[in-house]
Amino acid sequence: MGKTSTANLLLPFLFVLFSSSPPLITTEASKLGSFRFAPRFFGRFAANADLNNLQTHKSLKIQYETRYFTQVLDHFSFSNLPTFQQRYLINTDHWLGPNSMAPIFLYCGNEGDIEWFAVNTGFVWEIAPLFNAMVVFPEHRYYGKSMPFGSRDSAYKNAASLSYLTAEQALADFAALITDLKRNMSAEACPVVLFGGSYGGMLAAWMRIKYPHIAIGALASSAPILQFENIVPPETFYDIVSNDFRRESVSCFNTIKKSWDAIEAEGQTEEGLLRLTEEFHLCRNLRSTQDLEDWLESAYSYLAMVDYPYPSDFMMPLPGNPIKEVCRKIDSFPDGTSTLERIFAGVSVYYNYTGVVDCFDLGESNQDLGADGWDWQACTEMVMPMSSSQSTSMFTAYDFNYSSYQDECFKHFGIKPRSRWITTEFGGHNLLTDLKTFGSNIIFSNGLLDPWSGGGVLQNVSETITALVTKEGNVPQEFCFHPFASSCRSLGFHPRSH
Amino acid sequence: MGKTSTANLLLPFLFVLFSSSPPLITTEASKLGSFRFAPRFFGRFAANADLNNLQTHKSLKIQYETRYFTQVLDHFSFSNLPTFQQRYLINTDHWLGPNSMAPIFLYCGNEGDIEWFAVNTGFVWEIAPLFNAMVVFPEHRYYGKSMPFGSRDSAYKNAASLSYLTAEQALADFAALITDLKRNMSAEACPVVLFGGSYGGMLAAWMRIKYPHIAIGALASSAPILQFENIVPPETFYDIVSNDFRRESVSCFNTIKKSWDAIEAEGQTEEGLLRLTEEFHLCRNLRSTQDLEDWLESAYSYLAMVDYPYPSDFMMPLPGNPIKEVCRKIDSFPDGTSTLERIFAGVSVYYNYTGVVDCFDLGESNQDLGADGWDWQACTEMVMPMSSSQSTSMFTAYDFNYSSYQDECFKHFGIKPRSRWITTEFGGHNLLTDLKTFGSNIIFSNGLLDPWSGGGVLQNVSETITALVTKEGNVPQEFCFHPFASSCRSLGFHPRSH
Repeated sequence: MGKTSTANLLLPFLFVLFSSSPPLITTEASKLGSFRFAPRFFGRFAANADLNNLQTHKSLKIQYETRYFTQVLDHFSFSNLPTFQQRYLINTDHWLGPNSMAPIFLYCGNEGDIEWFAVNTGFVWEIAPLFNAMVVFPEHRYYGKSMPFGSRDSAYKNAASLSYLTAEQALADFAALITDLKRNMSAEACPVVLFGGSYGGMLAAWMRIKYPHIAIGALASSAPILQFENIVPPETFYDIVSNDFRRESVSCFNTIKKSWDAIEAEGQTEEGLLRLTEEFHLCRNLRSTQDLEDWLESAYSYLAMVDYPYPSDFMMPLPGNPIKEVCRKIDSFPDGTSTLERIFAGVSVYYNYTGVVDCFDLGESNQDLGADGWDWQACTEMVMPMSSSQSTSMFTAYDFNYSSYQDECFKHFGIKPRSRWITTEFGGHNLLTDLKTFGSNIIFSNGLLDPWSGGGVLQNVSETITALVTKEGNVPQEFCFHPFASSCRSLGFHPRSH
Repeated sequence: MGKTSTANLLLPFLFVLFSSSPPLITTEASKLGSFRFAPRFFGRFAANADLNNLQTHKSLKIQYETRYFTQVLDHFSFSNLPTFQQRYLINTDHWLGPNSMAPIFLYCGNEGDIEWFAVNTGFVWEIAPLFNAMVVFPEHRYYGKSMPFGSRDSAYKNAASLSYLTAEQALADFAALITDLKRNMSAEACPVVLFGGSYGGMLAAWMRIKYPHIAIGALASSAPILQFENIVPPETFYDIVSNDFRRESVSCFNTIKKSWDAIEAEGQTEEGLLRLTEEFHLCRNLRSTQDLEDWLESAYSYLAMVDYPYPSDFMMPLPGNPIKEVCRKIDSFPDGTSTLERIFAGVSVYYNYTGVVDCFDLGESNQDLGADGWDWQACTEMVMPMSSSQSTSMFTAYDFNYSSYQDECFKHFGIKPRSRWITTEFGGHNLLTDLKTFGSNIIFSNGLLDPWSGGGVLQNVSETITALVTKEGNVPQEFCFHPFASSCRSLGFHPRSH
């Protein structure tokens, strides 16, 4: 895994990459050279999503009105900055109104187009009528259509224009929006319940902690709020990915584990790189094994995130139990088949399940440096250290090096991360003990197959801060699709209105 | 009260003004024309303070080391801004150290030189040894020596340089500082208890609400956290000031109440203005009655804040029960004495108790427009609406007009206030109910003679959020001077270490 380019091989962590429709499958690898941040939650998929195709669950009646709210760009300072229009989706069809003190379900928008999260969050839509609840999906600033400075290009122009893309500002957006909305609807007394998955789950938990006067409770799904500093071991994420493969098949795990050396060996020569290009059906000639390795790691990590027991098209069209399927392919060849042939067959389950891809484009992204919001967030406050262990993971060994991470961020964005800020602002090493003392009304839900569960809250903290753990699953309740939403409820989740 | 200048007479509220040493007594009146914000807590006194003279309570052993901590200028965004040096005072003499989990007493620095608050907060110093506590007094950004951009002039240059002067940034400063300090001292497990008076008391309460993982409790003295929007009636402040005078003497109250018309009448002509100049021993010719009225209002309001039963030199050298003394003067003249003669004698108790002032300088401040930090804060987020009632106050009637307030702020600072932000960020109309549900470990202490008590928490909210009310007093426990500190303890205050 990149041993030939040690100078830049600082963070061999994946961009989990998603693409809406084959054959345009891109990797971010080239964007920042061989420098990598932590795996993404959702990548750029949402921005590219064809929502008409995604909205396949119309039986759930996912209908909403799209509105815009004028937001302050910097809530915590008074620079003379332009405001921006924050998009939010709202549905009041089932809301009983202020006189009934009917609840407001607020989904904390993630790093992507809010419509994509709305149509993929069946659970909220399914339970809203049961609670006579209003549903509001505010979009996260700097994503989707909620762009400061008038356009995505202007918002992502440089570090100065990006500087207001932080979790704290996003929470303040939610707070300002919901406060104004409630006032306008005379709904000040209506309880607000927060929902969110992945980064949005972190936002939901943090919002309950920081704005308890605004929201009475939160369901935080797959929210790795302990993935900062060294609260959990940095190997956790890749260990879980690896275990997801090992539990399906030890030989599959071993094949993947030895594949990195095989790729490196082959890539030593120009001829070898050409053979790899052919073997993996790449559209363009491979220039470095790193690009290929990133592409593979990305697939494995993402497969672990969406290893649902049913077919899904959450990010990519995939069969049920896709890791089992990948390993079945890898293991299915007769003895003597090359490691790389097996690997290609396996990864094709992920990248080409529908079989329509002729060749794979590993990237050569034409986006501007730092044009992606999550990269910026990872290089400022969302510093989640990740290592991979030689002994326990199927990936090559890597030790997180903060100093190098910092240097690379400075190189790419002209900014130094504040790696300790998130724990200062939201709590860190003693967070669970602290939450027990001062927190309340948060449900942390995790599936243990999900690699993000490693940084999640997996045990009950108190009577009102509880963990919902799905041992052999990775179904974040937030993302229960119809017809699976009923199975989410069977997990025992019932949001509390008080 | 300024009826002649109605156009600008938008906010006839006082700058409570303090000066360290006679005869330099200035008013802020001219600084912003006749526009006024809410009364200040401490005014510019701290900046001018002669700390050698103030440190009269050396028997308390107020000793500290002065250190500086490198702070991020904008904690919530990632603009490429310069850091600044935050000053803090620290004493570890009595601290038993991390192994004993000995507490850290953190005073939330107010809008002024932190040394001034340190030497005037005898209570913290007195109880620290009893709790084997470390004492830390961080200075509030943009005050004292904690100036961004290298100097006060640069920090106060314009709205852009001032924009990071907010309560949220100050709280984040405290959080970053104490987190770093604890880490460096291996004192992560040592509980932090917050202290603060007036604006610092608000910061202490808000910090406990927003950073419960950092501080286990707060003593918030004279903290008007309900003085926003219309949570408490806007007349509250001036009604309490007025009642403080009426309780001493109804005739005194009435004399003051009718004095405004007398001043207005006299000030109709140039000759009248000259007579007022002589009557009030002003150093310079009075140009408008507004200046004189502001000066008087300022004295009355401040007298209400420091109406201690013992002599004090907290801001000005004053006798014990100074309002009683003022009214004694006002009432002491034989029948037929003019109202203005009475008023001058009364106000001289406040402005010239030591008798060394030859003439009074009402201001004509030469400071730059908006050079004062509190004015900036009042024009951005600290919008505390204040009115005075014709029927219940001794001041002329005034109804707070937010629209005018906003316009004036824009005129003076080029900025529009966000009057609803504080309640969005920290809680508003339902704050007490909310605190009952989600808050803990805050003691709100107030003396009912203190006009700021009107916006304070005066009733127990829960078992762990309690109100300490001194009915006939205005002794904020934070500011108990030796030898009076023992009387503070007799009020029943004992900070909880857990």
